[in-house]
Amino acid sequence: MEDLFSYDRLYDFSKQVFLKMGCSDTDALQAAQTLLSADLRGVDSHGVARLSGYVRLWEVKRINARPDIRIVHERPGTAVVDGDSGLGLVVAPRAMQIAIDKGLNTGAGFVSVCNSNHFGIAGIHAMMALEQDMIGMAMTNASALVAPTFSKDRMLGTNPISVAIPAGEEPAFVADFATTTASNGKLEILQRKLEAAPAGWVQTESGMPTREADALKKGGSLLPLGGNREGASHKGFMLGSIVDIFSGVLSGANYGPWVPPFPAYVPMPQNMPGKGIGHFLGAMRIDGFREADAFKQDMDRWIRAFRAAARVDGQPAVVIPGDPERESEQRRRKQGIPINEKVVVDLTALAERFSIEF
Amino acid sequence: MEDLFSYDRLYDFSKQVFLKMGCSDTDALQAAQTLLSADLRGVDSHGVARLSGYVRLWEVKRINARPDIRIVHERPGTAVVDGDSGLGLVVAPRAMQIAIDKGLNTGAGFVSVCNSNHFGIAGIHAMMALEQDMIGMAMTNASALVAPTFSKDRMLGTNPISVAIPAGEEPAFVADFATTTASNGKLEILQRKLEAAPAGWVQTESGMPTREADALKKGGSLLPLGGNREGASHKGFMLGSIVDIFSGVLSGANYGPWVPPFPAYVPMPQNMPGKGIGHFLGAMRIDGFREADAFKQDMDRWIRAFRAAARVDGQPAVVIPGDPERESEQRRRKQGIPINEKVVVDLTALAERFSIEF
Repeated sequence: MEDLFSYDRLYDFSKQVFLKMGCSDTDALQAAQTLLSADLRGVDSHGVARLSGYVRLWEVKRINARPDIRIVHERPGTAVVDGDSGLGLVVAPRAMQIAIDKGLNTGAGFVSVCNSNHFGIAGIHAMMALEQDMIGMAMTNASALVAPTFSKDRMLGTNPISVAIPAGEEPAFVADFATTTASNGKLEILQRKLEAAPAGWVQTESGMPTREADALKKGGSLLPLGGNREGASHKGFMLGSIVDIFSGVLSGANYGPWVPPFPAYVPMPQNMPGKGIGHFLGAMRIDGFREADAFKQDMDRWIRAFRAAARVDGQPAVVIPGDPERESEQRRRKQGIPINEKVVVDLTALAERFSIEF
Repeated sequence: MEDLFSYDRLYDFSKQVFLKMGCSDTDALQAAQTLLSADLRGVDSHGVARLSGYVRLWEVKRINARPDIRIVHERPGTAVVDGDSGLGLVVAPRAMQIAIDKGLNTGAGFVSVCNSNHFGIAGIHAMMALEQDMIGMAMTNASALVAPTFSKDRMLGTNPISVAIPAGEEPAFVADFATTTASNGKLEILQRKLEAAPAGWVQTESGMPTREADALKKGGSLLPLGGNREGASHKGFMLGSIVDIFSGVLSGANYGPWVPPFPAYVPMPQNMPGKGIGHFLGAMRIDGFREADAFKQDMDRWIRAFRAAARVDGQPAVVIPGDPERESEQRRRKQGIPINEKVVVDLTALAERFSIEF
């Protein structure tokens, strides 16, 4: 069961919650905007459904509502930013702005971030670059749920990659995807529907292929994009590893099996090598390479060619990356955002906890 | 049937061929080194097996043996390089050196290349950065053999990505993979063995899944990493698209279905929007982010943790990216490089054509 809520109502409520946690007005606004962008864009697992999770991390002092987010090392085109345990929802946009400023200056700016937390959807950070006629990139590591090819150990997070590329008359190209075959959120949807998982999504605790959508709850693992060795899951493993190293190792955050979990009740890993979780953010000026208008004309031609590619009988048209999310945003801004009844209960409890209205 | 040839013999021969094409001594040496790195590293489809293909492109004047490789636009951390139809084997290392020089200066250097040709294996270009304690990146687009999810049209090349990351006591992490489930080279091996292709590798001309290893010869397509929609092939499609846009659109090269084919006998696409094929090369200083020795210690810990991950019963250990290629190189430098009998015939014909010894 789902009810529809207006964007404004969810935004105001989330902002109130962040203010009650002690965030500054600027940070509460930023955090609420970043969080809600997930609900607008149809990534329900990363929006207000997670609000109470952030609060619980703040309660156990793993989130600092008044962080001193600062550059700890830099060169003209690069930096490491220490998020001071701030909300990833706030740390990531701040670090992305540094990448953009550096990129405006040198052509290409890249920032690796340590000591952060869950940053919401990667796409919203990458898209910050679009307004400046830049290509934006965003990645993050996350707590380990994914087994490398041949292994039964959870060693990597779902480690998403987003790349946002400006176009001219066409909407921007915005890719945003986990480096696994499927996310845990998609498995939870199947569990609610009592449906089986497609092949290549999960394996059991002993590393056997399984169609059980609740395999993760029984100690199993998600699988890297590709699903198994024949399907080239070693490539998905390489992608997830690159995200982990750029986000975690390059910044001095935790990495691999040591990335701290999002649920506050899950014990922290032993012998953690770094600080918090890590992100990697980048921005490249189009006109660091060629004249922006000429580039955008070619992007329009690229997008139109792919949109027009011949369909397989009975299949829909080729999906241009970013189209489904943009259409979701247009629809949900107008019609409201559907919120699962369990999430409504969760938000109502938060309202009581903080004596605010929902 | 295969015969073993020493690296030196194949290298000397390839260099002679490039000299006969009219390359300068420096370029012939560079081209032979780049080409042979594929044979050493076990990527037989990209090494001397392609030498006669390069010669045929030169014969039809699609490869310029005396190119004026130059920067056509730049900022401190970015550039577009025009390869002047030079051998990709020469253009890519030159452009990578520019990315490295820019990266040494600003922290992060990125170069997009137009007007180039097949550049051999991506990994060898990315690895150039390792000597400078930098992370290297290399991608290229290629002529269209891959259908996007839901389509039956060939719209993208196998568009590989390589990322090379320095470690300390452990060997470097070197990922190098096509953004498809499988390469055409792997399908050709199955055809020789008269074996079926695994699910998710290819589809027929009408876009139906097939196990026929020769599906491409019958008008079918390779599939993006993921294989089909349930296996998340839209993610492989996004990856291939990003490589295409960074390499082709950003540089002013051709892109999508307009990328020129490698075989000289295949007609060129109509209405080509750009020049030649495109590459994208990058180099980031480790110490643009954090102290290089501390980073390398963490990389060693990362690599050792993944190497030690628990195996699924009956499976080998987790493969650290770069290990198989490095082991191949050590073995083949010592024992020689196995060359398929058809390739030997091909090289013998080249020797006659240019009146040189093989």
